[in-house]
Amino acid sequence: MLFDYLPALLRESKTKIVLLVMDGLGDLPDARSRLTPLEAAQTPHMDRLAAEGILGRSVPIRPGITPGSGPAHLALFGYDPIQYTVGRGVMEALGIGMDIGPGDVAARGNFCTLDAAGLISDRRAGRIPSDEAIPVVKTLQDIKLDGAEAEVRHVKEYRFALVLRGEGLEGDIEDTDPQVTGAKPLEPVARSAGSQKAAKLFNDWTHKAINILAGQPKANGLTLRGFGGDPKLPKYKDVYGLKAACVAVYPMYRGVASLVGMDLISFQGEAPADEFAAVLENWANYDYFFVHIKKTDSMGEDGNFDGKAKIIEGLDQALPLLLDFKPDVIAITGDHSTPVPMRSHSWHPVPLLLWSAHHVFADEQVQFGEHNCAKGGLGTLPATDLMPLMLAHAGRLEKLGA
Amino acid sequence: MLFDYLPALLRESKTKIVLLVMDGLGDLPDARSRLTPLEAAQTPHMDRLAAEGILGRSVPIRPGITPGSGPAHLALFGYDPIQYTVGRGVMEALGIGMDIGPGDVAARGNFCTLDAAGLISDRRAGRIPSDEAIPVVKTLQDIKLDGAEAEVRHVKEYRFALVLRGEGLEGDIEDTDPQVTGAKPLEPVARSAGSQKAAKLFNDWTHKAINILAGQPKANGLTLRGFGGDPKLPKYKDVYGLKAACVAVYPMYRGVASLVGMDLISFQGEAPADEFAAVLENWANYDYFFVHIKKTDSMGEDGNFDGKAKIIEGLDQALPLLLDFKPDVIAITGDHSTPVPMRSHSWHPVPLLLWSAHHVFADEQVQFGEHNCAKGGLGTLPATDLMPLMLAHAGRLEKLGA
Repeated sequence: MLFDYLPALLRESKTKIVLLVMDGLGDLPDARSRLTPLEAAQTPHMDRLAAEGILGRSVPIRPGITPGSGPAHLALFGYDPIQYTVGRGVMEALGIGMDIGPGDVAARGNFCTLDAAGLISDRRAGRIPSDEAIPVVKTLQDIKLDGAEAEVRHVKEYRFALVLRGEGLEGDIEDTDPQVTGAKPLEPVARSAGSQKAAKLFNDWTHKAINILAGQPKANGLTLRGFGGDPKLPKYKDVYGLKAACVAVYPMYRGVASLVGMDLISFQGEAPADEFAAVLENWANYDYFFVHIKKTDSMGEDGNFDGKAKIIEGLDQALPLLLDFKPDVIAITGDHSTPVPMRSHSWHPVPLLLWSAHHVFADEQVQFGEHNCAKGGLGTLPATDLMPLMLAHAGRLEKLGA
Repeated sequence: MLFDYLPALLRESKTKIVLLVMDGLGDLPDARSRLTPLEAAQTPHMDRLAAEGILGRSVPIRPGITPGSGPAHLALFGYDPIQYTVGRGVMEALGIGMDIGPGDVAARGNFCTLDAAGLISDRRAGRIPSDEAIPVVKTLQDIKLDGAEAEVRHVKEYRFALVLRGEGLEGDIEDTDPQVTGAKPLEPVARSAGSQKAAKLFNDWTHKAINILAGQPKANGLTLRGFGGDPKLPKYKDVYGLKAACVAVYPMYRGVASLVGMDLISFQGEAPADEFAAVLENWANYDYFFVHIKKTDSMGEDGNFDGKAKIIEGLDQALPLLLDFKPDVIAITGDHSTPVPMRSHSWHPVPLLLWSAHHVFADEQVQFGEHNCAKGGLGTLPATDLMPLMLAHAGRLEKLGA
C-alpha cells in the first residue's frame, strides 16, 4: 500500500503542485467527427502543456467500474477507494456543505408515508418536491437529544441528511428502510458495541421526529440509510508532507478534500478565472492546490457536446493566469468520464496530462485528447498513481533503498 | 479483490455477452513476413469488429508467467489464478471428463515399477504406452472401498486419474511419490484433520490396487500426486448475476467452466459453425456464453503456422452466424499464447478484441492482430479485468459509491 512506504521517502521542498480536475472530463468520440468534446475544443494552452509534458489515462477504480464522485476523487488524491470507503451518509452530508468531524455520525434520510397502522404506504412520500419538503425539514431542526447535537438539512425532493455530533459516536448501524411497503420502518440497530450509543440517539431522534411529523399529509414518516462516521482518512500533511488547499465551488468536492486534510479556500465567483484568482491569492501559503471545475460533468450529464467543449475552452482561456505563477507540476485530468452519449458517469479511462518544469519525459503527443492520451507516454495508470508521480516531478521524494 | 465489491454493483439486464476463446491464440511474428498466424489469416469479420471495437492485450497470470489451461481460463473468467487454485488432480480428472463435485477428492496417478523389496525401480513404469496401460487401469475399476466410491480412468501412457466420492472428504494430502528410485512409495498423509478420512481411503485403495497389480511386469506399483477436492469457486450467478453456458468440445474446458457454475451445452460436431449453432439454440436461456476453440492451440503445439492461420480463418468465416443474433458484447481472445516457433504455451500477452453495441471507445485499430493489439485502446490488462469490462459494456454494473 502506498502509505506504507511513501511517507518515509518524503523530502522537504518549496515546489508547488496543482491538480486541476475537470469533473467528468473523459468522453466518447462523436460518431461523425470521431472527436470527443476535449478533442473538439480549442485548447492552445493545454496543448502546449501536452507537447512539453506527457499524456496518459487514469483508471479511477478498476477497469469496468464506474465511480461515484467521492471514490473518484479519493483515487485522484491517492487513496485507493476500494480500501478507503466513505459512508453514503457522510458523502450526502458533505455534498450539501455539512461538516463531518471526529465523533460525528451521518445518515441519509428519506421521508415516507405511513398509514394509520404505522406501516409504510409510500417509501418516498409521494416523491414530494423540494418546495414541499423544505418546510417539513425545518420542523425537525430543533429536536434536542440527550448526549448529542442533531443537525438536519434538506437535500432534494423527499431526501434529507442528518448528522449527530457527540462523544464516542460510531456509525456501524443498519439501515431503517425495510425496502418494502406494508412494513414498519425498522429501528436503527448497531452492528458493533461501539455503535450502540449512536444507534440509540438516532432512534430517539426518529421517535421525536415522527411525533412532529404526525400531521403531515405525505411526509409523516422517515427512514435512515447509509450511516457512517468520519472515515478517519490519513491526512495530506502526514502522508505527502503537503500543505494542501482546495479551490472548489461545490460542497461535495470541498467535503472530500476536507476529509484528507485540505484547507478549504473561500472565494467569490464560479468561473475558472475566479478559481485561479483564489489559488494565486493563497499561492505562498500552500504546496498543493486541488482546483475543481464542475461544469464539464454537468454538460456531460445533459448530453451537451458543444456545451462541454465550451467549458473546456473557457478553462483553457483562463489557464495563463495560473501558468504565470510558474507551478512546478501541473496535472490536468478528470475524476471519471461522463460521456455525452451516455449522459452519466462511466467506466472509461480518463485523459490525463502531466506537465512539470522538472524532468518530465515529453512523449510524442502534442494535443490533449482521449485518443492521444491512449497513446501517451504515461500509459494507462490507476488514478492512485498520480500523486506519487506529481511528488516525484516536484522533487519531493527520496529514492527507496540504497 | 474483485468479488469483494463487484456483486454489490450488479444491475439486472437482458443483455447478452459472448466470450470467444481461441485456445493458445497469441503468437510470435514469422521471421520473414513479420506476421503472426492471426495477422496472416484473412479475417474480415473480426477486422470489422476490431474497427468498431477496441483492441488490447491480456496478461493471463502475471508478466513472464506461462499459464496452464486451467489457470488461464480461470483468469478469463475473472478468477485470479494465484488466489483461486485448483488441484492438479482435479484438473487432470476434469480434463478427461470426470465430474468433480462437493465431497469428491481427485488425484493424479502414475504407474511405477517396484522391485522384489517393494522399492521403486522406475518411477514411470518404463513409460508404458497407452495401449499397454489401458487394460491395466481396467483391472482397478472394481476396487470397493468402505465409505466412498472410487472412479479410476486412464489419462495417457503411464498416467491415470483417481476420484473418490463420499461424505466429508477433503484433499489436503501429501503426494505419495518419493521423487527418487530405491525408495518405497509413501503413504498418503493428511495435512489437516479434515483430510484424514480421505487419506485413509486413498491408502486403502492403493493397497488393494497393489495386490491386483502384483503380476504386472512393469506397472506393478503406483504413486498418487496433486490431491485436491472441489475448489468451491464462487459461481457466475452469484458474483456476476449471469446465467452462463459453456460451448466447448474438450472435457478440460467444460470442466473448468462447470467449476464456476456454467451449464454445459451438449451438441454435435466440432467445427466453429457447430459451436455457434449450439449457442444460438440456447440463445434465449442464457446471459453469457463461453465458446472455446481448441485447434489454434493444437496447431501452435505442432509448430504449424499455416494450420493455425487456417483455423482462425475458419472461425472468422463462421462468425456471421453468431453476429446475426446481435450479442451486446463480444470478446475474442485466447487463454494464453502458444507460439508456433515455441510449440508450447508461453507467457506472451494475448491479443484481445472487445466489441460492444454500447458505448465502446473505438480506438484507431482496424485489424485484429498482435501488433495492433499492442497499440490498442484497452492497453495491456490482467486477463481478470475482462469480465468487469464486459459487464460494464453490457450495462450490468451500477456505479460504485456516490
